[in-house]
Amino acid sequence: MGEKTRSSAYARAGVDIDAQDRALRRIKKLVRKTFTAGVLSDIGSFGGLFRPDLGSMEEPVLVASADGVGTKLAVARMAADYSTVGSDLVNHCVNDILVQGARPLFFLDYVGTGVLEPKTMEQLVGGLAAACRKNGCALLGGETAEMPGFYGEGDYELVGFIVGVVDRSRILDGSRVKPKDLILGLSSSGLHTNGYSLARQVFFERLGLSAGDRIPQSDSKKSVAAQLLEPHLSYLDAVGPLLEHPGVHALAHITGGGLTDNLPRVLPPKTHASIKVGAWEIPEIFHLLQEHGEVSSEEMFRVFNMGIGMCLVVDPQGAGEIMAHLKKSGHKAAPIGTVQKSGSGVVYDLKS
Amino acid sequence: MGEKTRSSAYARAGVDIDAQDRALRRIKKLVRKTFTAGVLSDIGSFGGLFRPDLGSMEEPVLVASADGVGTKLAVARMAADYSTVGSDLVNHCVNDILVQGARPLFFLDYVGTGVLEPKTMEQLVGGLAAACRKNGCALLGGETAEMPGFYGEGDYELVGFIVGVVDRSRILDGSRVKPKDLILGLSSSGLHTNGYSLARQVFFERLGLSAGDRIPQSDSKKSVAAQLLEPHLSYLDAVGPLLEHPGVHALAHITGGGLTDNLPRVLPPKTHASIKVGAWEIPEIFHLLQEHGEVSSEEMFRVFNMGIGMCLVVDPQGAGEIMAHLKKSGHKAAPIGTVQKSGSGVVYDLKS
Repeated sequence: MGEKTRSSAYARAGVDIDAQDRALRRIKKLVRKTFTAGVLSDIGSFGGLFRPDLGSMEEPVLVASADGVGTKLAVARMAADYSTVGSDLVNHCVNDILVQGARPLFFLDYVGTGVLEPKTMEQLVGGLAAACRKNGCALLGGETAEMPGFYGEGDYELVGFIVGVVDRSRILDGSRVKPKDLILGLSSSGLHTNGYSLARQVFFERLGLSAGDRIPQSDSKKSVAAQLLEPHLSYLDAVGPLLEHPGVHALAHITGGGLTDNLPRVLPPKTHASIKVGAWEIPEIFHLLQEHGEVSSEEMFRVFNMGIGMCLVVDPQGAGEIMAHLKKSGHKAAPIGTVQKSGSGVVYDLKS
Repeated sequence: MGEKTRSSAYARAGVDIDAQDRALRRIKKLVRKTFTAGVLSDIGSFGGLFRPDLGSMEEPVLVASADGVGTKLAVARMAADYSTVGSDLVNHCVNDILVQGARPLFFLDYVGTGVLEPKTMEQLVGGLAAACRKNGCALLGGETAEMPGFYGEGDYELVGFIVGVVDRSRILDGSRVKPKDLILGLSSSGLHTNGYSLARQVFFERLGLSAGDRIPQSDSKKSVAAQLLEPHLSYLDAVGPLLEHPGVHALAHITGGGLTDNLPRVLPPKTHASIKVGAWEIPEIFHLLQEHGEVSSEEMFRVFNMGIGMCLVVDPQGAGEIMAHLKKSGHKAAPIGTVQKSGSGVVYDLKS
């Protein structure tokens, strides 16, 4: 069937298959740059084909995770800038499997929108592709769905799926954690991808700010949108080389639920994490959120990462060596607490 | 931190973490029933762990695909019935990797909504879990995102991600297809998951029908919503046992783009598919869509599957045996055309 006669009634219903095709061609070259040695398929096949190099593994275990960016997407829409949310998503997914000891193999994305705007697609997929390359992870496939009437004008949903691999004996599951272990914290770049519903309410509803405004009482010259869009960091470069270090007992990615809910996921029964709140610098944005939003400290630590994006639970013996490595990776790191006998959950020590 | 003091400001902003927790507990038991021998992780870990049994494979290749349900979700909302879309999604994904010769290992889901309604979540995840079990595929993980203000009241986005495995020498990629091969068609159950933007426009805007109404001139006693919600079929039971059959040269899953766009994906250069339109019974719903929507036949075959959900391109030699097997599987099957030298794409032969 000829190009010109295609899709007339379908286009009337709001779906333009040809516009999708054009956007697809543009992003193909971005995606191809992510292709690692394992990729066997080209773009556009029914499924992506990936041959993992399992040569050195005794018992390879696949580790998979699905995630979204949450309402950080609404900030991207306000700022008309979708160039950073792709990194958010890839880095979030990379961290989620990293904490189980896995290195990423490939990533797939899903983009849902009302009517596809090719330039926005390029920003989205460009961001995904750049982050995949940095993490050595192939952008193996994806799906773009135009759902007119389902998504609001200019809204984009972005979902990611990652698969990595770890040798079974190397899986990190918290079973090696014991009392007196040290908890090291790696700095986040900001909110990462959690707490945006509350942050948007505080800045855009309560304070009535626009995307380009500065936050009242902020020392930063950046707009509220720029501060909120700061991309989620990947900790693969910092933590990847330490995965086989015998002193690393567990990792926790600090996402939804904050330190309060994520640290206990790697603690043995009848232990708790004692966190020294003064041990690291809580970035200004969290103070501003707490003040302007009148949010309790308890809630702040459950909704936001409070400046800590990743925790390593380590043997006190190896801690010095591990800290030295982390600092060399360029990330800010600090000992922020310890694992203690008895109880459960996280106890925050507010003394400085 | 106590249950009672949690999340007050966050709940004000529309996110209730505790309600999510309660829903999660209810669906856990549904999900656990899908766990095959490869699953090593429990629900709630950062990533799902899966140990594939690669024992008999020489060079295992992972095949991955991401997909959504499209605006079939809007029909589910109209009918207030989310119990079937989970099957749609799983079966769609299973078919997408099946056509490359892969059998499913595991599946992950993403559910996005404004405010989580636990009963709807159970319908959604119940449907996913039931379909995963039928396909021998573990529901290894998932993400539920509450995004108030981003999704409309009662709207649910549903995205799926599947990983399967195939031995490299068994990958189906169309390279064995040759002129004179027969094209066998397996019947669809209806629209499957494609063409819903157009179908909704025709039935709900043009004709002004409500979910419970019957379609004018329809012989069916089912409501328009029930007809449109008929679940996407999985062809794993029919085609899986044939994957090693030397007569099976290629498979094509007939999704967005219809026969017109999907068959050519497995044809060698300088060949075309000649399809005999009278060779199978086109279900009534497609005739009703064409008539009420005044859609051209050309477009019908590009937007809808027209009653064919899966095509097998087979060697004429083995066709009899393959047809016999397909019919034994309980699916309706028919020879619907042939591969022909010269040209490209699909040529529809309208003579009966």
